[in-house]
This record gives sequence, C-alpha cells and structure tokens, in this order.
Amino acid sequence: MEGEEAKGNCLAWAARDPSGILSPYQFDRRAVGSDDVALEIKYCGVCYADVYSTRHQHNGTIYPLVPGHEITGVVTEVGSNVTQFKVGDHVGVGTYVNSCKDCERCSNFLEVHCKKVVFTFNGIDYDGTITKGGYSSLIVVHERYCFKIPDGYPLEFAAPLLCAGITVYKPMMHHKMNQPGKSLGVVGLGGLGHMAVKFGKAFGLNVSVFSTSESKRDEAINILGAEKFVLSSDIQQMQEMESKLDFIVDTAAGDHPLDPYLNMLDVHGIMVLVGFPSEIKLSPISLSIGARNLAGSVTGGTKDTQSMLEYCT
Amino acid sequence: MEGEEAKGNCLAWAARDPSGILSPYQFDRRAVGSDDVALEIKYCGVCYADVYSTRHQHNGTIYPLVPGHEITGVVTEVGSNVTQFKVGDHVGVGTYVNSCKDCERCSNFLEVHCKKVVFTFNGIDYDGTITKGGYSSLIVVHERYCFKIPDGYPLEFAAPLLCAGITVYKPMMHHKMNQPGKSLGVVGLGGLGHMAVKFGKAFGLNVSVFSTSESKRDEAINILGAEKFVLSSDIQQMQEMESKLDFIVDTAAGDHPLDPYLNMLDVHGIMVLVGFPSEIKLSPISLSIGARNLAGSVTGGTKDTQSMLEYCT
Repeated sequence: MEGEEAKGNCLAWAARDPSGILSPYQFDRRAVGSDDVALEIKYCGVCYADVYSTRHQHNGTIYPLVPGHEITGVVTEVGSNVTQFKVGDHVGVGTYVNSCKDCERCSNFLEVHCKKVVFTFNGIDYDGTITKGGYSSLIVVHERYCFKIPDGYPLEFAAPLLCAGITVYKPMMHHKMNQPGKSLGVVGLGGLGHMAVKFGKAFGLNVSVFSTSESKRDEAINILGAEKFVLSSDIQQMQEMESKLDFIVDTAAGDHPLDPYLNMLDVHGIMVLVGFPSEIKLSPISLSIGARNLAGSVTGGTKDTQSMLEYCT
Repeated sequence: MEGEEAKGNCLAWAARDPSGILSPYQFDRRAVGSDDVALEIKYCGVCYADVYSTRHQHNGTIYPLVPGHEITGVVTEVGSNVTQFKVGDHVGVGTYVNSCKDCERCSNFLEVHCKKVVFTFNGIDYDGTITKGGYSSLIVVHERYCFKIPDGYPLEFAAPLLCAGITVYKPMMHHKMNQPGKSLGVVGLGGLGHMAVKFGKAFGLNVSVFSTSESKRDEAINILGAEKFVLSSDIQQMQEMESKLDFIVDTAAGDHPLDPYLNMLDVHGIMVLVGFPSEIKLSPISLSIGARNLAGSVTGGTKDTQSMLEYCT
C-alpha cells in the first residue's frame, strides 16, 4: 500500500478510513485527452460534504478518499479539441467532472441532474476510475466541467463559489429572488448562509438573518450588511415576522421546525431548502394558507455556474 | 327556537349540531345595500367543506350552520352603485363573500388571502352576522364577490367551478401548468381530481391519474380522457413513473406518502397539494434531487375566478 502510494503525478491529502483523518497520498491523474483541461490547483474550499464523506457518514465512501470540490487554479495543458481555454487561464472545477452529455438534462445544461453525473470525488468515472477531488496538486477534466474565472478575480475568493455559491445562486435565480426591494430570509449563517446574504444584498433585497446564535448578529448586520437579525429561539420576534418575507433560503443542515419559517412567507412566497435535514415535517396549512412553496435544490449546471462567476466579478 | 326560525326571507337547510343532519331553517338575508347584488339561488355544489363543517370536525362551527359555497343563480335586485350586474344576469358566488378591499392582497385581487376575508358560511361578516351559505333560496353579496356566468353556460355546471374548479385552476395557472405537451399527474379522482384532469386535458397536457381504486380506471381513461391510469398500490407501476412528470396536482385528502409522487417529478417539477392531509412528511432528498417544488394552494381571488369561468365556456 505504502509502495503504491509513493508514485504518481499528483500529490494529495486522502482519508483512509472513517476517522476522516487526512494524510499525504500520491496517485496518477489521467493523461490529458483531446477534450481535457489540466490545471494546477491553487485553492480548494472546504465543504461540509468533505467532512461527511471522509467520515463515511452517508455510506458509500471508497477509501482512499481525496475530498474537495471547490477548486481553482491555473491551466497547465489543454487537449487538441479544447477551444475555451488556454495555458495560463484562471479556471475552476466544481462538484462534478462528467455527465452523459447526451440526455435532455445535459442538453439543457442541467448536468448536475444528469442520471450519469460523476461527482468530483468518490464518484465512479466513465473509465472506471474513482474520482479524486481538489485536496490535491492537479486535476484533469473535460473542458465542459471547467469554468473560466474572470480576469482579476482572486482565485481564493472564487473557490467557494463553485459549491456554496452556486448552491444558493441557482435556486435564487430560478425562483426569481433577484427582484430589488423584495424581502429575503436567510436561515443559518454558515458557508451557504453568508453566500445567500451576499447575493441577497447584491440583488437589492431586504435581508433578514435567522440564527440560533446571538454571536452571529455582528457578522450578519455589520459585516454582511443584513437589515435584520432574528434569534430563532425568540418566539416573539419570530412571530412578528409572519407574512413579512417574499423568499427564504434555508441553509440549516440540522433538523429544525419549518412551519415557523413558512408562516413568515407572504402570498406565493418561496422557501428553498439547501441544507440537508434528516426529514421534512410540516403542517399542510403552512403551505396552503398563502399558497406558499417549498423547494429543494442542489448546486447548478455548467451554464448557471459560469453565469454566477461572471455576476460575482 | 322553532319560533325564531319560522320567519325570514330566506329558506335554507341548516345543521343544528355535530350530527351534521340538515333540516329546514328560515332566516333573513340583509337588505340589498348600494354595492350589493341579490340572487335567487338555483344550484349549489356539495363540497367536502360542507361535510366537515356541519359535523364540527375542524372546530369552530357556529350552529345553526347553512353550508354551501358553490352557488349559482339569477340576479333579482342590484344596489344603486352596482355597475357590473343587472336583474336577470346569471351569476355565481364562491367560497368568500367579503374582504377588507384595502390591503395589498385585496389590491392584487388575492382576496382569499386577505387577513379579513369572510367565508361564505360560518364566517363572521363585518356587520357581526354569521354568514350562511348556498343551501338556501337567496343570497345578498357585495358585487365584488359575485361572478358573471357567461351566457349559455349551464348554471348547474358552473356551480362546482366556484370551489373545486378554482382550487385546481388557480395553482395550475400560477405554476404555468398550462403548457401543451407537458405531463401532469393527478392524485385522487374525486371532485377536485376530475376537475384537474379536465383542465389538464383542456391545456393539452398528457395526463396520468393515480388512484387507490381500480374502479376509477374507466372514468379516468374513457370518460375524462386521461392518457394513463396508475393504481397507486402497484409499486412497480409507481416506480416506473420516476422523473416522468412535469407537474402533479395532489387532491387526496387523507394521509398518504408524498415521496413516491415527488420522485415522479422531472427537474424543477412542481407538485401542488390541494387536499388537506393532517401532516406532511417527506425526505429532503425528494425535493433536492431534481430541484423539485412542493406548493400549497387554496381557491383563488376574484379576478382568477372570473377568468376561469370565461375559460370554461
């Protein structure tokens, strides 16, 4: 095992077992194919998916596992058919590195929903190899799954956009949450939550942040510029928000009651869940009164991801 | 009690206690005010709300209760300010007879969502009287809550449109389920379900009906023209529908699992609940995979109701 790991063109950090502890690992990235782009990885964001995958919390982890799907770097080589990228370009790779390219979903640039999508790590690629993520020195991907980072945009800022950013941007755009003057609630102020607040402010929304931690108030108001901070354990403050919001982005991963938040939505209001509670339980009345909507979402397709990167610069 | 009931200008059927048994009842409708329309009631649909209200199943029933909110009839008198109606017009009254007329919801013709909406029966009207529904000989309403039944459209066909019809038409229009060629699932084939199938066919959708009763197959396919009938207890047939539908209108009132239906939705698919199960329980994955939506709805505002009546003729 030691012997096997000590060769290969790519240096990485890998988890070897459910302890999730990362240690150095060496393996070979594939040779650059005619449609491929190779990049030297400069930055990789840390996503909660990295944590639960290395720890085998959702089953299915194949060790050694190299996590990381918020990758930015510099192009070092391109295949003969590649037209969108050249050596030296600043680029990024997000949560998936392959899809069938042929189904209706791929045709509509909804690749993340392709039934044969291959995730950036712990996925089985079409050549049978297990994908390895961005906690590594380089990566080789088909150009379709490579994104151009606009000139001058810092690579370290771009990295977290490739999972956290697109995860909130995609549903916000799909559900037309970019209408200036409308009101947005953001539940939870972690990686996803702070992105949602930043997009909300950029879209000209009136943003309220909901958190279980009073310690988040300063960040919400003074650093991110939210208009309001509500401690979610304060029942009176929560009730005062009834029907006050047009949209909610719920980023909380743990189980939490949804009815109090749904009741904050105005008529036809939309709440998007981007966290992963273990079960959704709610009263039908929370949806029917006010004709409200509860939506799910997962990252976004290649076109939306590129649009987001351009919007952010 | 008997003495009180034996006078008044309106003859009705009322429930007197939670047995829900209806017996003759006589009371006074108000005099026609300057903005009011009086109509002689010719038909009144029977809605499940009539049943549970007369039986005090959702609490809050004030006896004697005169049910009925799918009312059609002929105008017998109009107030001095009424411009939209004249004596002899065919008209209808739906699930509400008053609202504040001043809030943002009323201004946007979302009167059913007005916080001061007054329902057609068992509601407390602004003059303090308890509203009495259409199981009666006449009704007096502000002209805003009175709908024109287009010429030649049978009053007996129009009546059930005023609750069942608008309850499915409104969310179908709001969620753009009127795109020809798209696929619609209808869960349950009762009063609401058959309306959903009829609208679906009228919109040019490919309609699949889901029912627990094999006995509904003939009605679904041969009478209503649905393309497909699926017995919801047939697990294999249900699984074969995975990702096959763009929209679902779920009309089932009893508790039933939602995950199997959500899994039938394609990317960005929308499922609208118009029945009233006691609780909603589902897996977050059913929403996040495919970025699906679960929406609630209740009847519709005055503008949508009038549009629906015109669409149906």
